[in-house]
Amino acid sequence: MTSARRSVEEHEQHVAALLEPLRARSASRVPLAHALDRTLSEDVDSPIDLPPFRNSQMDGYAVRARDLSSIPADLPVQGVLAAGDTVAALAPGRALKIMTGAPVPEGADAVVPVEDTRAADAATVTVERSVTPGTYVREAGSDVRKGDLLLPAGTVLAARHIAVLAAVGLTWVPVRPRPRVAIISTGSELVTAGSELGPGQIFNSNGPALAASASANGADVVAIDHCHDDPDEFVKMLDHALRVADLVLTSGGVSKGDFEVVKDTLGPRGGEFVSVAMQPGGPQGTAVLEGVPILTFPGNPVSALVSFEVFARPALRAAAGYRPVVCEELPLTTGLTSIPGRRQFLRGRLDDNGVTPFRGHGSHLVAGLAAADVLLDIPADTTSLEAGDLVKVRIL
Amino acid sequence: MTSARRSVEEHEQHVAALLEPLRARSASRVPLAHALDRTLSEDVDSPIDLPPFRNSQMDGYAVRARDLSSIPADLPVQGVLAAGDTVAALAPGRALKIMTGAPVPEGADAVVPVEDTRAADAATVTVERSVTPGTYVREAGSDVRKGDLLLPAGTVLAARHIAVLAAVGLTWVPVRPRPRVAIISTGSELVTAGSELGPGQIFNSNGPALAASASANGADVVAIDHCHDDPDEFVKMLDHALRVADLVLTSGGVSKGDFEVVKDTLGPRGGEFVSVAMQPGGPQGTAVLEGVPILTFPGNPVSALVSFEVFARPALRAAAGYRPVVCEELPLTTGLTSIPGRRQFLRGRLDDNGVTPFRGHGSHLVAGLAAADVLLDIPADTTSLEAGDLVKVRIL
Repeated sequence: MTSARRSVEEHEQHVAALLEPLRARSASRVPLAHALDRTLSEDVDSPIDLPPFRNSQMDGYAVRARDLSSIPADLPVQGVLAAGDTVAALAPGRALKIMTGAPVPEGADAVVPVEDTRAADAATVTVERSVTPGTYVREAGSDVRKGDLLLPAGTVLAARHIAVLAAVGLTWVPVRPRPRVAIISTGSELVTAGSELGPGQIFNSNGPALAASASANGADVVAIDHCHDDPDEFVKMLDHALRVADLVLTSGGVSKGDFEVVKDTLGPRGGEFVSVAMQPGGPQGTAVLEGVPILTFPGNPVSALVSFEVFARPALRAAAGYRPVVCEELPLTTGLTSIPGRRQFLRGRLDDNGVTPFRGHGSHLVAGLAAADVLLDIPADTTSLEAGDLVKVRIL
Repeated sequence: MTSARRSVEEHEQHVAALLEPLRARSASRVPLAHALDRTLSEDVDSPIDLPPFRNSQMDGYAVRARDLSSIPADLPVQGVLAAGDTVAALAPGRALKIMTGAPVPEGADAVVPVEDTRAADAATVTVERSVTPGTYVREAGSDVRKGDLLLPAGTVLAARHIAVLAAVGLTWVPVRPRPRVAIISTGSELVTAGSELGPGQIFNSNGPALAASASANGADVVAIDHCHDDPDEFVKMLDHALRVADLVLTSGGVSKGDFEVVKDTLGPRGGEFVSVAMQPGGPQGTAVLEGVPILTFPGNPVSALVSFEVFARPALRAAAGYRPVVCEELPLTTGLTSIPGRRQFLRGRLDDNGVTPFRGHGSHLVAGLAAADVLLDIPADTTSLEAGDLVKVRIL
């Protein structure tokens, strides 16, 4: 079977179109306590004035500013207002002891901080500094007015946003739904960690790694299955995945071997299997079954993670409403050569001098990937670069 | 009661010393599936060679390189090796069809990719290109050797780290424990969102906001309580918090009013209440009860969150093993004035031209905080700055 060839850009566009429905899912509502890091799906207007009532910005005395025309001024103290107390009216020529946040009573127009007063006893206060009307009084709605925009759609909720949503009394917030992702790693040679390795066997790393990748990019992982190279088993797992997920990711079974369970199963069901001009991650496939998009990645651990990075991550982040993946142009600390006709994603490290690609490009070198903090993105038509040349870099 | 005065730097050091025990807690172990974003508490060495056995990097034919001295070469095919199959020895002069990841048999020293072969039937293959010994053969341990350092202590686990930990078969990983944080917001004026606001009442925003702040910085929030200005209620909640938490954060009740439940309760129990030369967030307190540190923040929402940012966040991040808070020097787009003798933390926005402080500094302006993406950190001895001047900025 020969595969169609595609550039990375062509396959990116193809995948982006397939995953477009992830962005169109209708909003969900979550309790505020679970809203951290979620993305608002719509503008949120304030249901109330904030502050909801005129209140004191200081511990001190509520007064009428004009009663302080001569200083010091002795004023009879009418009572004490703590935060949470209800409002009493202030009689002319008097003062009310008031705590921060307590309602400023009718008749009062300013607060004198306690530092600017002396009180020999509870009955009288001596005010030592005059104030202008409005001093240390927070007017109702001076922070936000009822009906005003509080937070725009697209806000990724941090603690300070939770603060204002709580302050206006919201308990549920409308957020973009997390895409539900199912992962099926295929390969009869794979065993789950915790078992003994038999001859010819390796531990399944793609399942845990793709699950972590999806979680880290705003998805809910709803299934992590491991499948032998057995079409019946794969069809069964796929059926379950299609019922519970918005996106299915598979690893393995898409290459040129005799037992390509993913390709052999999805090919006859309308799947497209192509050779993308990239390294690692060349063998790629896509399918849509029962309306659910499926991305099939190659099985080498580095290939699978680079495939996720290039094809799945942008769409998942867009669906979750997160900002796009960060790319920068940085200088190379050393020269490199690259295979013509393939976009290379090299693992490398960042320091103050620039970016240094690792030696050894094998797509099985998962320890090398773990030690990397950037992916160097070398264009398909580049064959060599020198120290100091700028390269596009994806921060991992 | 007069409070001691402290600079921000003095209080930072005081708090850092109090919270030092958070860093000293013994490591815990988590299943790999829950290890994303956790920090390794110790170096992890590889328990196995990776790859664990010599295997094929391509779908193709395992051969002896010297059997291909004349090209094309017709070789009898001895059988098929799929990934997961056990190893057979290759007889001289023959080939074994082999899939990516399958063990390279004894007697074979290279793999010819399927692209470089023709096979008229399953019995014979025609190899069209010669190979050198070692071609497309991954040696056991070529990625990592058993006993080699896999990941150093302090690694914050991302998907690529999960990949390599899974690849070597680890199911549990040693990580820094998350600090357990209990939050008590005090104030009789506070009501929980979902209720109706009565006269003089406001919604409790500090509880949800401090909980979100703690979660976002690597802590497990183990209690979120709201307490009226009632010492008995506060003592009861505090008792519970001290039993379940490594750190207690309170808001409110530390100022100069008549009903300062936190100050009045903790003062006689060895708590220190000080006036820190900063705005917002001046009234601060600390205590240690039953070995558990307590930080008492003021109750205004902006004051509470700025207090968290300045005093709690660095210690929580250090305890969780996260990199320190990011500070940058950026140019102001507009001039500003600042009160002498107090370090000001102004809310502001970042764009390509620099940083613009918001007008209105009131510590109740929680909507303004929500709209901010940076805190401008203006030193205590600065009284005015002009457009273009550099200011220290904390990215929120």
